[in-house]
Amino acid sequence: MIKGCHNECTAEGCSGETAKHITESFKASELIITPATTFKEKPDPSGLVFGTVFTDNMLTIEWSLASGWEKPYIKPLENLSLHPASSSLHYAIELFEGMKAYRGVDGKIRLFRPTLNMDRMARSAKRATLPCFDQNELLECIRKLVEVEKEWVPYSTAASLYIRPTLIGTEPSLGVKKPTKALLYVILSPVGAYFASGSFNPISLWADPKYVRAWKGGTGDCKLGGNYGSSIYAQQEALELGCQQVLWLYGEDHQITEVGTMNLFLYWINEDGENELATPPLDGIILPGVTRQSILDLARDWEEFKVSERYITMSDLTAALEENRVKEMFGAGTACVVCPISKILYKGKHLHIPTMENGPQLTTRFLNKLSDIQYGREDSDWAVLVS
Amino acid sequence: MIKGCHNECTAEGCSGETAKHITESFKASELIITPATTFKEKPDPSGLVFGTVFTDNMLTIEWSLASGWEKPYIKPLENLSLHPASSSLHYAIELFEGMKAYRGVDGKIRLFRPTLNMDRMARSAKRATLPCFDQNELLECIRKLVEVEKEWVPYSTAASLYIRPTLIGTEPSLGVKKPTKALLYVILSPVGAYFASGSFNPISLWADPKYVRAWKGGTGDCKLGGNYGSSIYAQQEALELGCQQVLWLYGEDHQITEVGTMNLFLYWINEDGENELATPPLDGIILPGVTRQSILDLARDWEEFKVSERYITMSDLTAALEENRVKEMFGAGTACVVCPISKILYKGKHLHIPTMENGPQLTTRFLNKLSDIQYGREDSDWAVLVS
Repeated sequence: MIKGCHNECTAEGCSGETAKHITESFKASELIITPATTFKEKPDPSGLVFGTVFTDNMLTIEWSLASGWEKPYIKPLENLSLHPASSSLHYAIELFEGMKAYRGVDGKIRLFRPTLNMDRMARSAKRATLPCFDQNELLECIRKLVEVEKEWVPYSTAASLYIRPTLIGTEPSLGVKKPTKALLYVILSPVGAYFASGSFNPISLWADPKYVRAWKGGTGDCKLGGNYGSSIYAQQEALELGCQQVLWLYGEDHQITEVGTMNLFLYWINEDGENELATPPLDGIILPGVTRQSILDLARDWEEFKVSERYITMSDLTAALEENRVKEMFGAGTACVVCPISKILYKGKHLHIPTMENGPQLTTRFLNKLSDIQYGREDSDWAVLVS
Repeated sequence: MIKGCHNECTAEGCSGETAKHITESFKASELIITPATTFKEKPDPSGLVFGTVFTDNMLTIEWSLASGWEKPYIKPLENLSLHPASSSLHYAIELFEGMKAYRGVDGKIRLFRPTLNMDRMARSAKRATLPCFDQNELLECIRKLVEVEKEWVPYSTAASLYIRPTLIGTEPSLGVKKPTKALLYVILSPVGAYFASGSFNPISLWADPKYVRAWKGGTGDCKLGGNYGSSIYAQQEALELGCQQVLWLYGEDHQITEVGTMNLFLYWINEDGENELATPPLDGIILPGVTRQSILDLARDWEEFKVSERYITMSDLTAALEENRVKEMFGAGTACVVCPISKILYKGKHLHIPTMENGPQLTTRFLNKLSDIQYGREDSDWAVLVS
């Protein structure tokens, strides 16, 4: 129906009867690379503030309903020139991804399960009515961009190069409708820890049902801009109450969902007396995190305790705390990897979570295992070589 | 705490203890006007497609946490130059308003209840953690812009000049946080009817609970971009099913909420046998429309039938249709003014709404009354003179 398989692409990425449209995706082989000739100074990896420094180059690919995808460009990082009516600026027709490139102990640069990001990006594009694309082609373009910027991948196993693919509607007219123009771009930023508290210092959460992040029938399972902008007001209130992040609750029974920038895991002795690692199921209101999936995959492979995607309510948690059944609680996401949780402010009470007292054994084990794969200390087909 | 009353402003617009910050709003008296010297051709008012043609000039006002608001500018319409990490493009930290300027039968140009838009914009800014401002100053800047562009206000009582105030986060770094930079801008577009079907042709709605527009604890009562981008996927499905817009339902009992671009009104004989004009209450998931408020105000002033802000479920509606108690149903919004509804597709059934068979008497009466005020055929303090 539409060039660039705009409307028909599936979550699996333009499969099935729309396969003929794949040929209309952009092609990494057509990349036009005109890199920067002046270079910014690279920052000290130990002093990085998340997402504030960008590399010298970016990837851009334009799309229009009339012409489909244009050729991809790698070119010096520059401001975008956008019509003031652009649909991304009015109606939040926009999505993003978050990935990282790691410089391994062997000097090689790796991505971590990047196809999961590409697949999620295709799902987000579909939900946002933005054009679909061949995920393999985008991944190859990103690989090339990281290759061009390889000196920006920090020489550190405590830092990495954050990759931010972004897809925005650039329709230059008003009216709430599917855009006829779009821009896909990728920018890179060397990063250390996401939270100012550092990479493995425990954080505190504020849990209050008065704000709701996502809901059934909405877009909470896609990485659309609107999920994030609406969260910052509550985030400010959390900060004012001395907490670092919001633990988003859902429903009358105050289900624990996620932290907005992280998925959430509880390692505990469950109601049936079993050791269990639990995280909320992907029921439409939870972002399907790559780190979340990797932790589930690792834990299931270990077969040492029960691994569940299940609902956990605040009363499940408070009962378990009273009965000393909680071992560890942690967030998991690309930006923070894993992040121990030590406190939840709920109904005016500070619930102490004994994560740090318990090692945190399991949290640390996941961090080490994931880091070993990401920094090349351990072979894994989850790590994809850039160069 | 923060310059430009960033955090503390109230829904009433930076009142109370933060009043001292108002002096840090931009000032219309400091406007720097450097209008375009080349002019686009003005389109025929009878052939306008909503939001596709823009006037020669725009208003822009920059804000930063460090310096507060800069001076406002009226200057030639041009593309925005935005850092690719801008928080509006990643996290939808953005909001907008919709207003119109009308050329009256007396040649004078009027705005319609613009302070309601300014107040809603201030509420949206607070919810989006964007900087607050003095609403009167913005209104005066907008008045000046319309004055500069007065020849763009269509010489027609079937068209008007649509005004799009927009406020976006321009924070040039990643990380989900309150922006330290923002841009307020206003663009203008001469418009005719919002819907392609024309200004008073009835439209059809698709009502399906599988998509939900807004929810308690979310942002559905503010004019944030994220509310709109997430709606287009369902809108596409509505189009594929032969309907023009989505009627958004809420809750297990399928409450009727709104149409996304319009509020919704039902004129019927209610369960108690009374003539009633009903619209859903402002309980947090409904956008508080200016046209909605004006219709309620007019109807209450008339004292001819019961006027209610009340819940209406799909089963209330279907029961009333079966019992021939439905007289008219219509949408109301700045873009469309009032728009009769003739059909709702619900649970696979096409529900015929007898709006057109009933005149539509009341819908037409509201349209005429509002038009009379907007086009200066009737004096009203709802109409604010531009020049």
